Amino acid sequence: MNPTHHPSPESAMRHALALAECAIGLSDPNPRVGCVITNAEGRVLGSGHTQAAGQAHAEVMALRDAQTRGHDVRGATAYVTLEPCAHHGRTPPCCEALIAAGLARVVVAIGDPNPLVAGQGMARLRAAGIQTELGLFSEAAQELNIGFFSRMQRGRPFVRMKIAASLDGKTALLNGQSQWITGLAARTDGHAWRRRAGAVLTGVGTVRDDDPQLDVRLVETTHQPLRVVIDSRLGTPVGAKLLRGKTPALIYCAQDISTHPGAAPLLAAGAELVSLPNRQGKVDLGQVLTDLGARGINELHIEAGAKLNGSLLREGWVDELLIYLAPKMLGQGFGMADIGALSSLQEAQQWRWLDCEMRGEDLRLRARRP
Amino acid sequence: MNPTHHPSPESAMRHALALAECAIGLSDPNPRVGCVITNAEGRVLGSGHTQAAGQAHAEVMALRDAQTRGHDVRGATAYVTLEPCAHHGRTPPCCEALIAAGLARVVVAIGDPNPLVAGQGMARLRAAGIQTELGLFSEAAQELNIGFFSRMQRGRPFVRMKIAASLDGKTALLNGQSQWITGLAARTDGHAWRRRAGAVLTGVGTVRDDDPQLDVRLVETTHQPLRVVIDSRLGTPVGAKLLRGKTPALIYCAQDISTHPGAAPLLAAGAELVSLPNRQGKVDLGQVLTDLGARGINELHIEAGAKLNGSLLREGWVDELLIYLAPKMLGQGFGMADIGALSSLQEAQQWRWLDCEMRGEDLRLRARRP
Repeated sequence: MNPTHHPSPESAMRHALALAECAIGLSDPNPRVGCVITNAEGRVLGSGHTQAAGQAHAEVMALRDAQTRGHDVRGATAYVTLEPCAHHGRTPPCCEALIAAGLARVVVAIGDPNPLVAGQGMARLRAAGIQTELGLFSEAAQELNIGFFSRMQRGRPFVRMKIAASLDGKTALLNGQSQWITGLAARTDGHAWRRRAGAVLTGVGTVRDDDPQLDVRLVETTHQPLRVVIDSRLGTPVGAKLLRGKTPALIYCAQDISTHPGAAPLLAAGAELVSLPNRQGKVDLGQVLTDLGARGINELHIEAGAKLNGSLLREGWVDELLIYLAPKMLGQGFGMADIGALSSLQEAQQWRWLDCEMRGEDLRLRARRP
Repeated sequence: MNPTHHPSPESAMRHALALAECAIGLSDPNPRVGCVITNAEGRVLGSGHTQAAGQAHAEVMALRDAQTRGHDVRGATAYVTLEPCAHHGRTPPCCEALIAAGLARVVVAIGDPNPLVAGQGMARLRAAGIQTELGLFSEAAQELNIGFFSRMQRGRPFVRMKIAASLDGKTALLNGQSQWITGLAARTDGHAWRRRAGAVLTGVGTVRDDDPQLDVRLVETTHQPLRVVIDSRLGTPVGAKLLRGKTPALIYCAQDISTHPGAAPLLAAGAELVSLPNRQGKVDLGQVLTDLGARGINELHIEAGAKLNGSLLREGWVDELLIYLAPKMLGQGFGMADIGALSSLQEAQQWRWLDCEMRGEDLRLRARRP
């Protein structure tokens, strides 16, 4: 999508949102932001999206684009999918760039989710005499940065749990066989969701049983998510494939790393170990999420077995279910999540269906908390 | 839908198909057929659909409608969703009525599925000098009468298995609680499918556990499907609600009805008993389907527990899965079907997703055999 003229603010903001999508897999931990600058007739003078962290934000990219194309942006309107920053981070504040360029009007889809800086960008623009508007396509803008919003507002990533199962809800046969219940189109779609994520997390049981690589292979990417294992007793095999990535895998355990005999071989294999025990001697999952949030992980992608899935669900850490249902019946086998026996249907965890689409031969269902 | 003019044969046949749908819940065991008669300009002269068994077929209804409205149908075109009958059944053959009325052209969606009479209707019309065409919207026409086609071509009903489950594939808690996993919209949709069926079938376990009525209540209907129980050892409680319907319920068992002590009370309670044992002393499910076919059941609706579901699926008798998935997790509970443990994914019964739609808060998925 690269239109040169926008008949309406809606059209211009849709363009900015489409540009923001190009920052998926690129801008983390920064938000995915798009910016389109138009003149009074709606002609596009410049456009751009957030680059890799430490590099230019969307507004600066759009201003540079206009300059490269020889356009004068004085008096023009900028459409930005997220409130321009007013603070000095790794780059100068975008507000100053917009003011210096002489823009007359800035239309913003949604305010900054960081409660400490929310509204400051809009205020700074207004103080400089720029006309501002807020709220155009705010829902789509938030959805695109659902993980960034989660990290800013809750201090932890947005957690998406991927499950591949048969139509009767089995993820593996009783003998452990699970590759592949779903087809290539579903697995490719799953990798596109991995690509969105800052980290992919699994449990030591899955590492032992399936030895997954946990990287993005079936879709193109310039970045690989952090690989994370929940492994209370440091039982990850040193030969595990996920330890062979270009960046260190992160293992959360509940042991004293300085004394546990399992630690040294894993450190030698290149893993980073962090001990976050809870009172039961298991890994404290809430602390894991806080730690991943502190590391700048916006979206966390879970691909684990029924045990870890059950713990995450029981403790209420899961924000979205991403379920691929293959059109086959397995009858007996492992379930999606061990959440224990309920004594009444009223105790069941409630979800809300978000969408349902075909992916090859399989169905893809998404659900969120109500 | 009641247009008075059709610009194309497609438009006229769509009208005829919509009329045929009005025969659902009315025409069984006869097929659902619609007929629209137009003049050369496409003006509708008359239209109709199959009435209750023994009463007029679609073609005769359309001819009568034209007469009532004072239209001359000589030289007109009839659009019929199923090949007109050429044989004397409970009503005179429709071919003769069309010929006698002086129609010039008959467009038929699909041929008669009965291999003994297929083509005879078309041949009879051509022999009378009527121009004929076959095949317009044949797929939709077959779908509408999928049960009639099954009975004519295979001697048994089309079998649709309804399952209501949580998103992790559980149909009841371990304590048996299952009412209601899905919401009112899904249950109402389920009754609309019951209404399509000539019979609703369950197992004695479900009768004991849930005491279902198995009738059509949540949607309007003029007819109630036959209620059928698979009950090898005649253990259906005489107080079961499904025995209280206006027509006798049908119980298939594997016992000698003349000597088994459970028979007399059930007969006294108004049930019809049929013994169809297999070599294992269970009910022979294949014979049940043949018997239901002989009774004129076109579509058979199954609402049973995991045990009977598993037997029907293992033996390959199920043509369609109608699954309602509630947006909740139950964790432990009863599964959809006990089909035993597989030793490899290649052994899994393959299905094909047909569609996926929201029904209130729940998802409705349909699958057919590939």
